[in-house]
Amino acid sequence: MPRRTAGGAPPDTPPARLSLISRHLAPDYPINTPYTVERLPSTIDTSLLPKTQTRKMSSQPPHPTLLIPGPIEFDDAVLQSMSHYSESHVGPAFVATFGETLSMLRKLFQTSDPASQPFILSGSGTLGWDLVASNLVEAGEDVLVLGSGYFSDGFADCLRVYGANVTELKAAPGQKPQLPEIEKALSEKRYKAITVTHVDTSTGVLSELKNLSALVHKVSPDTLILVDGVCSVACEEIDFDGWKLDGVVTASQKAIGCPAGLSISMFSGRAMQAFQNRKTPPASYFASMKNWTHIMQNYEAKKPSYFATPSPQLIHALHTALTQILASPLSERFALHRAASDRIKQAVADLGLKQVAGNPDEQAHGMTAIYLPESVKQADILPSLAKKNVVFAGGIHKEIATKYIRFGHMGVSVLDPRRGDIDRAVKALQDGLAECGYQKA
Amino acid sequence: MPRRTAGGAPPDTPPARLSLISRHLAPDYPINTPYTVERLPSTIDTSLLPKTQTRKMSSQPPHPTLLIPGPIEFDDAVLQSMSHYSESHVGPAFVATFGETLSMLRKLFQTSDPASQPFILSGSGTLGWDLVASNLVEAGEDVLVLGSGYFSDGFADCLRVYGANVTELKAAPGQKPQLPEIEKALSEKRYKAITVTHVDTSTGVLSELKNLSALVHKVSPDTLILVDGVCSVACEEIDFDGWKLDGVVTASQKAIGCPAGLSISMFSGRAMQAFQNRKTPPASYFASMKNWTHIMQNYEAKKPSYFATPSPQLIHALHTALTQILASPLSERFALHRAASDRIKQAVADLGLKQVAGNPDEQAHGMTAIYLPESVKQADILPSLAKKNVVFAGGIHKEIATKYIRFGHMGVSVLDPRRGDIDRAVKALQDGLAECGYQKA
Repeated sequence: MPRRTAGGAPPDTPPARLSLISRHLAPDYPINTPYTVERLPSTIDTSLLPKTQTRKMSSQPPHPTLLIPGPIEFDDAVLQSMSHYSESHVGPAFVATFGETLSMLRKLFQTSDPASQPFILSGSGTLGWDLVASNLVEAGEDVLVLGSGYFSDGFADCLRVYGANVTELKAAPGQKPQLPEIEKALSEKRYKAITVTHVDTSTGVLSELKNLSALVHKVSPDTLILVDGVCSVACEEIDFDGWKLDGVVTASQKAIGCPAGLSISMFSGRAMQAFQNRKTPPASYFASMKNWTHIMQNYEAKKPSYFATPSPQLIHALHTALTQILASPLSERFALHRAASDRIKQAVADLGLKQVAGNPDEQAHGMTAIYLPESVKQADILPSLAKKNVVFAGGIHKEIATKYIRFGHMGVSVLDPRRGDIDRAVKALQDGLAECGYQKA
Repeated sequence: MPRRTAGGAPPDTPPARLSLISRHLAPDYPINTPYTVERLPSTIDTSLLPKTQTRKMSSQPPHPTLLIPGPIEFDDAVLQSMSHYSESHVGPAFVATFGETLSMLRKLFQTSDPASQPFILSGSGTLGWDLVASNLVEAGEDVLVLGSGYFSDGFADCLRVYGANVTELKAAPGQKPQLPEIEKALSEKRYKAITVTHVDTSTGVLSELKNLSALVHKVSPDTLILVDGVCSVACEEIDFDGWKLDGVVTASQKAIGCPAGLSISMFSGRAMQAFQNRKTPPASYFASMKNWTHIMQNYEAKKPSYFATPSPQLIHALHTALTQILASPLSERFALHRAASDRIKQAVADLGLKQVAGNPDEQAHGMTAIYLPESVKQADILPSLAKKNVVFAGGIHKEIATKYIRFGHMGVSVLDPRRGDIDRAVKALQDGLAECGYQKA
C-alpha cells in the first residue's frame, strides 16, 4: 500500500497518526506478507500499538520455523540487509563495509594477533575445505583427520582431491577420537596438519579444541591445527589466540545467522607462513590464498581491490549479523546457547529418547541429534512436525541415517525469547511423537 | 510506518483509501527509504496515484545509479527476493524453486537438448573458470586461449593452475584474435579445448561465437568450445544449441540482473561426456562436476539432494530475475540492449571520443569502454560523474588502465525507460567532461 510518510517526518505528523488509526480499521492481516510488505521503522513510537503484536513485529511473512542445523531463522534486519541497493564492489561505501566486516570477524574469533588473517569468499561452507586443502597442504604431505561423522569424511575427501596423504582416525557414530589415540597417531608420523570437526553436523558430536590443541603443541608442535567450525562458530566458545589454533573455517548460514553463500575463515600467522613457504603453487584458483590474501588486506585497510566480485548484499547481511553478535559479550551468547541446549537435551531425556552423541561432554550446544523410538519412522515424524510449523532435519550419517532426526537451535531462535521457537519445537516434538503412537516406556 | 492493510483486502477498503489520501498530506519523502520501507503491492489500484511518481515507485532508497559493467542496478522485485525468509535447502518449496531456476536457464541459453547440463554454484563468476579448468581439461592437455583482455588472461591463469598446457593467441588492447590466425593455430596442434571471452569486460571487445564455432567444428571437430559469458549472457545473443557451443560460464550480477554470489553455467552433452571420459579425477572439490552433476539433476527433477548448502535467498532472486527475463522474447531483450548501446556509442563519437574496442563489429552491447581525452584524468572524471549520481568504472586492462573509463549498460537501466538511467548518464558524461575542461576539437 503506497504511502509517503515518515522519511524524516516526526512520528506525530498527521499521516503517521492516520496510519496508526487505519491499523484498527483493517482486519488482522500479517504485516509484510508478499501482499503488504510493510515494515516497522525504528523511528516510530510503537507504544501506540497493541501489546499483543510482538510476533507481528517481524517483517517476515508467516512461515514454518526452520530449526535444522543450518540454514537457521534469520533476524529481520539481517534479511533486510540482503535487499541493499546495488553498489560498486570497489566503491568507497562498500569497501568500508567489507573492511569493517573483516575486522569484526577478528572479534568473533577472539583473535587480536595482527598476523591472523580473515577471509570471506563467495561460496558454500564447503569451499573452506578447498581453501585449507589447496593452500596449507601440498601434494604428498601427511594430514591426520579426526573422524567424527559425515563432515569429517568430507574434509578428508577434499584433502585427498588436492593430493594430501590422509590418515583418518575414525570414531563410531556419535563418538569422536580420544586424546590418547590421537597422541599415539601423532607420535607415529610427522603430520603437516591435523583437522578436527568442532561440531559434526551429522551427529551433533562436539570436539574439545583446547585440550586437543595443547596436546598437538606438546607432541607435534609443527603440526597445523585446522578446525571445521561450520556448526560451531558463534554458538560454541572458540578462543583462537588462547587455544593457539591455526585455522577455523565456517559458513554464514549457521550460528552467525546470515543467509548462506559465504565461506568465512580465520588463519593464524603460522598458517599464513606455512602458505608462504609452499614449494608448489596453490592447487586451486578461485580458492587460492595467493589471489585473495592481499585483497582481504586491502579491503580491511579500506582500499579498493579486485580479484573476483564479492556479493555486496551478502556482505551487508554479514555486517549486520556480526554487528548484532558483537553488541553483547560473546560469553553471554555462548551461555544462552548452552542453556537452551541443556533445556532441549533434558526434554529429550524426559521423552525417554537417546541422543546420537551419547557422552554429555561431547554434545554440541547448537544442535541435538535425537535417535527415534524404534516404532517411529523419520518419514512420519518429520511431516508431523511440519504440520505443526516446525522444520527439523533428517539424519545424514550414512550408517544410521534413517534412525535419527536433527534439531538445530542456533541464533535468533535461541536468543530472542519473544519468538518462543524452542518451546514450540519441544512441544511439537512431544505431540508429534505421541501422534506417531510413541509412549515413554 | 506500521499499517495493517491490503493483505487480501480489496483496494477499495477504507484503510486502503485512507492510505492513498494520506500520501497527499505528507511531504514528498521517497518511499521505502531506511525510514519508511514501504512497497507497492501489485494488488493495489495504482491509477489513483499521481502520474509523476514513476521514479518514486522504486522500493529502493535514493542512491547513485550504478552503471559499471557489473554489478548492475537491480529490479525491485529481484532485490526483495533476496530477503526471502529462511527455508531448508532440501525442503520441497526450495527444491521446486531451484529446479525451476535450472530449467529456466535452459531457455536463457537457448538449449533444448536434454543432454545439456546447467549448474548454479555459490561463488563469484570466476568460479566458472575453475569449473571448466578442473573438470573438462586434464593436466598436460592443450588448451587454446583467445586473448582479448584482462579476463582472457585470467582464464588462462586458471587453466594453468589445474595443469593445462595453455597456448595464448593474444590481441592488442581493444582487439581480438582473428579467424585466420585461429585456424592456423588449430591446424598446428590438437587442442582439447578452445576458450573465448565473449565480451572481455576490461575492453568491451565482443567476440563472434557463431563463426568461431563453425571454424572450430570444421578444422578441429573434437575441440571443446568453452565461452566466458560473464559480461554477455542475457544481453548478447547466445544460441547454445544452434552454434554448437560446449560450455558457457557466467555470473549472476551482470545482464542477468541478480546480485553477485552465483556462478552460473551450461555445458553440452559433449562436454559432459568429456568429463565422464577423464582418466584422472576432477582437480577441484568444491567445483567438482562429480560432486555437483547429480545434485543439479535431482534439483531439476524436484528431488531433494545435498552436496553443499546453496544460498536459498540468491536462488530466489535468480528465479525472479529469470522469470522477468523470460516474460519477453529474448530477441527483444537483445535488440533493446543493441539500441541503447548504439545510442551511447553515437554519443561517445559525438563527443569526439574513441572506444577501446575500435572496430564497430567488435563492440559489446552491454558496456562501452571509452578512451579519455588526453587532457582529462580518470581521477577527475569519475568523481565528477559520482557528484552527478552516476557511477562508472575505471580501466582495468593493465597496458592502458588509466587511459579509459567503462560505462556498463545492462538490465533494468536499459530495459526500464522510466528510470532514464542512460540519458542521465550520457548527460553526466557530457557535463563532466566539460567541467574537466574538455571541448571537442
